[in-house]
Amino acid sequence: MTTPRLLGISGSLRSQSTNTAILKSLCARLGDQAEMSLFALNDIPLYNADIETQALPASVAALKEAIAQADGLIICSPEYNYGTSGVLKNALDWASRPGFNSPLKNKPVLIMTSSPGVLGGVRAQSQLRETLSATLSRVICGPQIVIPGVNQKIQNGHFVDETTIEFMRAGVDHLIAEIKLWS
Amino acid sequence: MTTPRLLGISGSLRSQSTNTAILKSLCARLGDQAEMSLFALNDIPLYNADIETQALPASVAALKEAIAQADGLIICSPEYNYGTSGVLKNALDWASRPGFNSPLKNKPVLIMTSSPGVLGGVRAQSQLRETLSATLSRVICGPQIVIPGVNQKIQNGHFVDETTIEFMRAGVDHLIAEIKLWS
Amino acid sequence: MTTPRLLGISGSLRSQSTNTAILKSLCARLGDQAEMSLFALNDIPLYNADIETQALPASVAALKEAIAQADGLIICSPEYNYGTSGVLKNALDWASRPGFNSPLKNKPVLIMTSSPGVLGGVRAQSQLRETLSATLSRVICGPQIVIPGVNQKIQNGHFVDETTIEFMRAGVDHLIAEIKLWS
Amino acid sequence: MTTPRLLGISGSLRSQSTNTAILKSLCARLGDQAEMSLFALNDIPLYNADIETQALPASVAALKEAIAQADGLIICSPEYNYGTSGVLKNALDWASRPGFNSPLKNKPVLIMTSSPGVLGGVRAQSQLRETLSATLSRVICGPQIVIPGVNQKIQNGHFVDETTIEFMRAGVDHLIAEIKLWS
Repeated sequence: MTTPRLLGISGSLRSQSTNTAILKSLCARLGDQAEMSLFALNDIPLYNADIETQALPASVAALKEAIAQADGLIICSPEYNYGTSGVLKNALDWASRPGFNSPLKNKPVLIMTSSPGVLGGVRAQSQLRETLSATLSRVICGPQIVIPGVNQKIQNGHFVDETTIEFMRAGVDHLIAEIKLWS
Repeated sequence: MTTPRLLGISGSLRSQSTNTAILKSLCARLGDQAEMSLFALNDIPLYNADIETQALPASVAALKEAIAQADGLIICSPEYNYGTSGVLKNALDWASRPGFNSPLKNKPVLIMTSSPGVLGGVRAQSQLRETLSATLSRVICGPQIVIPGVNQKIQNGHFVDETTIEFMRAGVDHLIAEIKLWS
Repeated sequence: MTTPRLLGISGSLRSQSTNTAILKSLCARLGDQAEMSLFALNDIPLYNADIETQALPASVAALKEAIAQADGLIICSPEYNYGTSGVLKNALDWASRPGFNSPLKNKPVLIMTSSPGVLGGVRAQSQLRETLSATLSRVICGPQIVIPGVNQKIQNGHFVDETTIEFMRAGVDHLIAEIKLWS
Repeated sequence: MTTPRLLGISGSLRSQSTNTAILKSLCARLGDQAEMSLFALNDIPLYNADIETQALPASVAALKEAIAQADGLIICSPEYNYGTSGVLKNALDWASRPGFNSPLKNKPVLIMTSSPGVLGGVRAQSQLRETLSATLSRVICGPQIVIPGVNQKIQNGHFVDETTIEFMRAGVDHLIAEIKLWS
């Protein structure tokens, strides 16, 4: 099998987003385990079926193509109001179309969450898994990857907590195993 | 007590949205039970804490002001991917700030969902209640207001199913009772 | 108003249950804020509508009577499999009958969770709130009361972490305020 | 591959349980698609870690052995209080031990729900999927198998709605495909 191609999606749009920093640092640490790139959600419009019917926005078409080309996804989300961000839910709503037959179908997905507090954004995981189950993607089960106290683990924009990086890499191993099941 | 002022928010942006039609028709049928207006989410940008810190977008400021001025909210949401729309979650993320002390705090909220299918969007209700509980708003409990087969219940843009309208008005009675608890 | 009577229910049956210890220690610390007693779920049978129809088991009748007599409930639950315990869900299934008109209707409820780990059982809170919303009880919203590292906070069967006790007492204040809304 | 062995578990204990009837009728209709037997939860005690540590009750040992011997599970649950039954959650709590390494680990599971009403018990599906994800079992994603109006579809104890039976058999096909992925 060739090297798996992974797509990272951050649920936060902030330029200094800790979730984005985590994904970028993970990219740099995967070595030959996998190739990984990121897709930024900043240009995705609010979902509107009127627009979808007329002409798919270029940013949405690019998101769906990037998902289709990837062997697996890694999502890193903040926790807003005990769930994932509306930003990420909105992107998944676009990507989930057409229902039960979108680029997300059968796609292995690894979920991660982070927060500045002690709970590591864990309350967002259930909602993300539920959303993704509706798309028929294959969410990796395993010890949930939650990253508490995230602000202390980032220096100069790089995520530097080695224990967490090893934990994430073990999650990526599970993701790749799931990808290989289908190859 | 003066006539309660209610704010309706639709989770769909489509011009022919059935959720919006339901809310509009409800407005017209409340009589002297309450005054009700709608707030459209079309201009709300994706949540980005960078933007929030610099200058609150006018549309978001207007949303938060409309919520603050209302005695209670009525949300009508579609069901996307077993949850509420990212559009609505995103609006609630903006409105929920600052955390635990936003205009949503202690605000009575009535939830309704609709769908063209037989389940009436019920899978979105749990997610909406969870989101709102995080804002410390007061979600009305009662028989869930779910509206299946919605396309058959709308004629010329008006929601015309009398049984459902009576069901919704009973929900509004609960909402108003909750409002009065706090007056 | 007379002193509120609160009923504590632990979601764990272990004789050394940390959740039970938390509730017992809270009883001892409420002073004249409220009277509080505990109801143990050990004798509640598995829910079976056949049994319910014939003759309500004495333990279930006692549970429902204790709930009916209480002004408010305090539930302390472990987290099993990202949710509340089946033990507690089963007890609530019994207590929730008849649907929409059980002793739980309109009953103010404060939820707490604990765990030996760092997440404090928070993943059980969403499920408990959802269950209780179906009973039309009034779950208190507020900063979620989660108690991580619980084993280190119990000495000789007593819960001794003063910071958490003050946090719980603030939650009890919210519970009592909700009770008084209805008095 | 040999014929897959499936284990059916009903979330209701009633002697005339519609969920049990559905599973029994499905057994009879699988032909050479799979072998299927049922495990009744009536004798499973309330979960108590004290008991678990001393001596596993025979009924629990039998449940765990039956799960271990099965290639896949089919769960049919009622909806109680917007979730699965406490009876079923309690059984899964027992079966999930030891955590992350129980007989449920990697076990393909098909979820079905039924109700006398129009929603078919769908509100229980999310909670069941969340519980099972914690056990690292592999819940089949696909159009959710919800069975509304169940009382009209049972005659003399047999589930007779052919449309639903075909729908369930398609779900079993997905379950078997998942089983074969791992063979």
